[in-house]
Amino acid sequence: MEGEPTRIMMGVNESTIKGYPHPSISSRGAFEWTLQKIVRSNTSGFKLLFLHVQVPDEDGFDDMDSIYASPEDFKDMKNRDRARGAHLLEYFVTRCHEIGIPCEAWIKRGDAKEELCHEVKRVQPDFLVVGSRGLGPFQRVFVGTVSEFCAKHAECPVLTIKRRADEAPQDPVDD
Amino acid sequence: MEGEPTRIMMGVNESTIKGYPHPSISSRGAFEWTLQKIVRSNTSGFKLLFLHVQVPDEDGFDDMDSIYASPEDFKDMKNRDRARGAHLLEYFVTRCHEIGIPCEAWIKRGDAKEELCHEVKRVQPDFLVVGSRGLGPFQRVFVGTVSEFCAKHAECPVLTIKRRADEAPQDPVDD
Repeated sequence: MEGEPTRIMMGVNESTIKGYPHPSISSRGAFEWTLQKIVRSNTSGFKLLFLHVQVPDEDGFDDMDSIYASPEDFKDMKNRDRARGAHLLEYFVTRCHEIGIPCEAWIKRGDAKEELCHEVKRVQPDFLVVGSRGLGPFQRVFVGTVSEFCAKHAECPVLTIKRRADEAPQDPVDD
Repeated sequence: MEGEPTRIMMGVNESTIKGYPHPSISSRGAFEWTLQKIVRSNTSGFKLLFLHVQVPDEDGFDDMDSIYASPEDFKDMKNRDRARGAHLLEYFVTRCHEIGIPCEAWIKRGDAKEELCHEVKRVQPDFLVVGSRGLGPFQRVFVGTVSEFCAKHAECPVLTIKRRADEAPQDPVDD
């Protein structure tokens, strides 16, 4: 008897280099690794919960070429962001359906590390998977460390998966 | 087709409260959690690799009542430490045999976080599991943070499993 499936929450984000709607290298890597090494052939034993946190500041930066002249323009921006997030999640949900593993996916806006920990508290997954660029200490100062924060503060076990060295882009801060 | 089993390395240590030969609360918790939530019924899909790092300084402290008058006395101490480590590993190996999951276990002497990362490099497991007392930032200063170090530096994914709050002993620095 297997009982309830193990519920794995995964924090996923968009690529900084390929843009809309591609997942980041570390998100995609962490996802494929989890399927291959944890789920394996036991697809009925697990359920994947994908959370994408949209960072308002970063999204604003992406939209710097746009002109905001009325509250309606901001509403459009929000809708556009939401569409981007939905496309990102579609990638993971589609892969899960192909493989036959149950999943759910949703979007939150805010600070990634805080929203991840907040959603862990609310949803109570069995564990949280976070991809990481695996940067050195000097580079880390500039990019923040979502995985480190979650490993310390999330109220569940945390699996940190670093990006493979051979997958790192030219500028390792990109992902 | 399942292919090669997923090789999970687990860092395990002795309890600071119950002494010889009991595993620490966080080691035992991380082990049982891994069986229940990751391995589940798929025992042929995984292999567990148990590494116990004996810390020379701590062992010396335990033996403060002993008198060392000759090099032979130190040799005795080393043998005794080795026996303690073997008893600790016996606990995990016995449990694995009961469940029918393949395993290996070995002992290293040195600094826990450095030996864990060193052995990851040598053995190349698919991921490393480390239990953690889950202390607050003030308490952490005094006890070191093997799990944090490994999550940052180990050359493989790292699963950090905090001790459950209801399992914490009276003094949370104990384990």
